[in-house]
Amino acid sequence: MGGEGRPVFVAGAGMTAFGKHADRSLGALAQEAVAAALAKAGLEPVAIGLVVSANSMAGLLQDQESVRGQVMLRGSGLEGVPLVNVENACASSSSAFQVASWAVRAGEADAVLVLGVEKLFHPDKARTFAALASASDVPQDRQTRSMFMDFYAARARDHMAAFGTTAAQLAAVSAKNRRHGHLNPLAQYRDEVTVAQVLESPLVVDPLTRLMCSPISDGAAAIVLTRAELLPAAAPKVAVRGWGLRSGDVTGPEYRTISATARRAYDVAGITAQDVDLAEVHDATAIAEIEACEALGFAPRGAGGRLAESGETALGGRVPVNASGGLGSRGHPVAATGLAQLCELTWQLRGECGARQVPGATIGVAENHGGLVGNDVAVAAVTVLERVA
Amino acid sequence: MGGEGRPVFVAGAGMTAFGKHADRSLGALAQEAVAAALAKAGLEPVAIGLVVSANSMAGLLQDQESVRGQVMLRGSGLEGVPLVNVENACASSSSAFQVASWAVRAGEADAVLVLGVEKLFHPDKARTFAALASASDVPQDRQTRSMFMDFYAARARDHMAAFGTTAAQLAAVSAKNRRHGHLNPLAQYRDEVTVAQVLESPLVVDPLTRLMCSPISDGAAAIVLTRAELLPAAAPKVAVRGWGLRSGDVTGPEYRTISATARRAYDVAGITAQDVDLAEVHDATAIAEIEACEALGFAPRGAGGRLAESGETALGGRVPVNASGGLGSRGHPVAATGLAQLCELTWQLRGECGARQVPGATIGVAENHGGLVGNDVAVAAVTVLERVA
Repeated sequence: MGGEGRPVFVAGAGMTAFGKHADRSLGALAQEAVAAALAKAGLEPVAIGLVVSANSMAGLLQDQESVRGQVMLRGSGLEGVPLVNVENACASSSSAFQVASWAVRAGEADAVLVLGVEKLFHPDKARTFAALASASDVPQDRQTRSMFMDFYAARARDHMAAFGTTAAQLAAVSAKNRRHGHLNPLAQYRDEVTVAQVLESPLVVDPLTRLMCSPISDGAAAIVLTRAELLPAAAPKVAVRGWGLRSGDVTGPEYRTISATARRAYDVAGITAQDVDLAEVHDATAIAEIEACEALGFAPRGAGGRLAESGETALGGRVPVNASGGLGSRGHPVAATGLAQLCELTWQLRGECGARQVPGATIGVAENHGGLVGNDVAVAAVTVLERVA
Repeated sequence: MGGEGRPVFVAGAGMTAFGKHADRSLGALAQEAVAAALAKAGLEPVAIGLVVSANSMAGLLQDQESVRGQVMLRGSGLEGVPLVNVENACASSSSAFQVASWAVRAGEADAVLVLGVEKLFHPDKARTFAALASASDVPQDRQTRSMFMDFYAARARDHMAAFGTTAAQLAAVSAKNRRHGHLNPLAQYRDEVTVAQVLESPLVVDPLTRLMCSPISDGAAAIVLTRAELLPAAAPKVAVRGWGLRSGDVTGPEYRTISATARRAYDVAGITAQDVDLAEVHDATAIAEIEACEALGFAPRGAGGRLAESGETALGGRVPVNASGGLGSRGHPVAATGLAQLCELTWQLRGECGARQVPGATIGVAENHGGLVGNDVAVAAVTVLERVA
């Protein structure tokens, strides 16, 4: 089970720059990403048989619920096309990607557009924090920071206590991702920072400093999935090789949910961690990248901090992680993040990444998680893409 | 295209009573419907490989966005199961049903739970109306009624002007559905009303009176989809035979979008309107049932009012429509409505409907639509179920 039906390919990927887009609507951001993905795929809107649109917080931040995708795509040429709105917190658009792949595999549509878009900046910052808290089962009141920072800080303290992970190792993750983001024209933060600067930046929740945490961001990303026959002839073929999706088990630790999801994705793909050439992981904070690297099998449990410090996850290392800059540098517009990871993998596998290109990359994996229910992430999604001849 | 992959069956269907459930949470309603559907399917939660959960307005009415399904299902035994939250206004749960069917057809999961749940009642009635307006691209301000009533009233006036449809024909729809709802223990309104009473009830927007409009409702409905091998041995088999999903084309009329969706569903099923034994249609107002009957081919364009008056769509008639009572009598908890229609079809095809049973029903069709973008519905969904030997 898992790999049945028609094989699925990424025909094109596009995204906006991530950052603060106060003067642009959700629809403007969405349509920029969609146009870029369609252009890369060499397809007109009329070729699209289904749209799966992801957004997580427009109901609370832009008063637009229920038919967000249909409203955002007015004027795009996609009116009339079947559209499903999908929502799964920070894993919204990687969930949408999986839904879209089921539709292609089932023969429901030959070409499916997946879209993720979010505007998190709001003039009332407390409203942004309340919207973020809606991705949990924690009662909401006015907050002065994202409650997820408290969750991740507790994970970091536990990891330090159990495995001797250090603040410098956490900082190594963030400094590395800023170095990568420096090379990504679409990243929100493009300035490099040193480990010392990360450690010296203001404390958010002990031990996490501001530079260890992903920012508030606006942006959109889009991908076109097709069956093989519709792929552009010129570009290298990028296949969807493996996937996993899980909800958290409420009482269990985040780590176990993400590692089980990764195992499932590797099993579907028929690969092991040793086959992976690069990864995009959900570094909502630095500790999340350390634990994701363990869950993906790049280091044994507990050794993720040492892995970060070793340089093996930097560009030029054994398995570059977050060559895009990750959430910490590229930015984290919630429902656009999963697709932004898959855009980066697609461009890397096609060899289109210029200064941040991972040479000869053949297999890439994306780890995306989100929400909080009980003591666990609400959703984990892992996707394996492969360049095929 | 359309019918590829494994065939999909309804293994079980369950719903709560619809009505005002001020003292019950979204989760309590959801879990009651889920438990009923699982019991009918003869499956334990552990057999479920995927949940597709639909809700449209909890972000605005219960401050719960992003991971609604995961939060609602805490304690249900479904923790850990992959879950995707889907939203498409009043067509949310029929959209979720189609997503779930892609997953079964693609071999992604052998058994998929589809859930639709909504709590529309809110102590501040204007907030309910604002939430309903979020299913449109119309700027929202505080309203004294659902803006959809204005939309449907304009449709009714146009239909009357073009085809000579009368207020008495509109009232015939509502009186018929109340007669049907009288026989449905789960309906919100179970009292019968006469055509005269419908006509004499207070005007909402000319020509629609209050009894021609669906109510504000809370409730949940759930369905388990499986491949054939997992069906309970004893019950008649109900197959998902045809489906269609479309977004509105913004500038076109609602009628055209729904009729195109119906044609697609009939084409996939390989049937015509003459093969249909009963239908559940989206009578958000009486005019919507009249136009749905035309779109589904039960009467020529313009003849839907006369069809309603003829008695052919009443229980005992040629093609009973809304044997459940429809939205007008059973109630209309937005994201639960599509699945409630499919629950009714399932029960009818299994011969489990007691006093409102359509004798020998073999093929049933559900028409569900929702939202408003430009001058058209945002979403239309049509599903064909068939009892097979």
